[in-house]
Amino acid sequence: MHYVTTKDGRLAAVINNRLIDIGAASIALGGAAPCKDMWALLESSQKVQQELDTLAQKAYEQQLASVVYEPQLVGSPLTYLRRNVLCIGKNYVDHAVEIADKMGISADLPKYPIVFSKATKTLIGPLELIPLHAGVTRKIDYEGELALVIGKAGINISKSEAWRHIFGFSCYNDVSARDLQKRHGQWHMGKCLDGFGPMGPAITPTYGQPLSDDLRLTCKVNGELRQDATVAQMIFDIPTLIATLSAGITLEVGDVIATGTPAGVGMGFDPMRFLAPGDEVEVAIDGTLPLTNSLALT
Amino acid sequence: MHYVTTKDGRLAAVINNRLIDIGAASIALGGAAPCKDMWALLESSQKVQQELDTLAQKAYEQQLASVVYEPQLVGSPLTYLRRNVLCIGKNYVDHAVEIADKMGISADLPKYPIVFSKATKTLIGPLELIPLHAGVTRKIDYEGELALVIGKAGINISKSEAWRHIFGFSCYNDVSARDLQKRHGQWHMGKCLDGFGPMGPAITPTYGQPLSDDLRLTCKVNGELRQDATVAQMIFDIPTLIATLSAGITLEVGDVIATGTPAGVGMGFDPMRFLAPGDEVEVAIDGTLPLTNSLALT
Repeated sequence: MHYVTTKDGRLAAVINNRLIDIGAASIALGGAAPCKDMWALLESSQKVQQELDTLAQKAYEQQLASVVYEPQLVGSPLTYLRRNVLCIGKNYVDHAVEIADKMGISADLPKYPIVFSKATKTLIGPLELIPLHAGVTRKIDYEGELALVIGKAGINISKSEAWRHIFGFSCYNDVSARDLQKRHGQWHMGKCLDGFGPMGPAITPTYGQPLSDDLRLTCKVNGELRQDATVAQMIFDIPTLIATLSAGITLEVGDVIATGTPAGVGMGFDPMRFLAPGDEVEVAIDGTLPLTNSLALT
Repeated sequence: MHYVTTKDGRLAAVINNRLIDIGAASIALGGAAPCKDMWALLESSQKVQQELDTLAQKAYEQQLASVVYEPQLVGSPLTYLRRNVLCIGKNYVDHAVEIADKMGISADLPKYPIVFSKATKTLIGPLELIPLHAGVTRKIDYEGELALVIGKAGINISKSEAWRHIFGFSCYNDVSARDLQKRHGQWHMGKCLDGFGPMGPAITPTYGQPLSDDLRLTCKVNGELRQDATVAQMIFDIPTLIATLSAGITLEVGDVIATGTPAGVGMGFDPMRFLAPGDEVEVAIDGTLPLTNSLALT
């Protein structure tokens, strides 16, 4: 079961390649009043979320209010962000090594999570074009990542409570302007260009349960496999990240946390392989829907 | 003329130590429908803003709808932030030098602005207590700064257009947890603790005009002068900051930009002088109202 947002902003579910319109399914089945959009779903009670799951499942089984799922039918799962995307740097061993030289930073593994954030206007949805920003950067790189979406607010969250605060997960591409990232010391400028944060297509609920360590993340550029790792390879696991990010800092419902990228980014190659106009990047993670975006041509 | 927000969230003006309630003044004078809060003022047209200025001035002259201004009557000028506060690191020469050793970073002056941001829940108002976060940090430092508030959205803003995008300025305290700032590589964790961004009391409009280079910023701890500088001492001036921050990144109405802190932060002393529970920090800038906050006792 995945939740998505249609191009016109309505909440829908995807089950086995069928896209189920939650509003239409509710009318057809006379069920509970549906959440009007993804924000309403995130903010609703567990009971309402369970009712929605049941509604979507019923509509799927009875072949009501549904069409074949196609990526072009949906937008970003959240149509806008209320807060910056929280991001973790150097959270996979091989990636920490591959970027050290190129960024002029230490290859030592971090002892504590490295945290930065991406501005709200970085968000774009599946198949949307990543802007070139030709006058601003010439070194655009991809970073396939697993993103988490917070479903329950909290501060000073313990590791053992972490999964209870997570609503679900999603594919994320932490698009980075490597020239700006290096030039401005802190990473804000290199990470925050408009449209540099493709997310989706789905938010796939985790129902308070940990994701499997075997979950595989891949990232392809024009069909060529560049990144390939499992959740088990993270230096700081997801409960540790939630505990760290919430230490003295309130996490709010709808906060998105990008958990870091594995080895294989363009900057890691020799010579470096930055994205060219028109290049297509696909981020895929077991258990959720894959995310494809191309770099704009002009 | 300064704009402030009363404790119950209403827009007010301060003229010569009188606090004028905009809503009450409008009723008393039969003037234009007032903006209900600071967000409405920021989003209103220049014409409406001029009408409000006139209304406040008239009410002041006729001694209507006004009381003596006291800091405890007002809260943060914006009751909430829609986006992270954008911050500039190492933007005064002496400060760049004083922190280099202590943070284990280069004392070279930055060639490009260093940009980071503070999460939305850092915001607190004048006289509100800065939380101790005793379990999270033991090295709380102050950074008095001049903050700008964006009044007109834009991307790729030229230096010559910069002041037209600024609504006004305010006092800001970029409270920092030095242990976290160092430990986590990037500065997010050290800068984003809840309540670590006191702002206000006023937003003082600049009407599209540059601030004077002679404008003086001071920061006192328990009455002792610690920071004392003028706008002229910034390494990157305000038009350069606006041009940099908006290069490929849309600035939105209500975005707050903290322009960096001068020498004299606690970390710069030998031995270092971090804030102790109960310490009072006052940030003052010529032409706007001073900001006072104390560190909580527990």
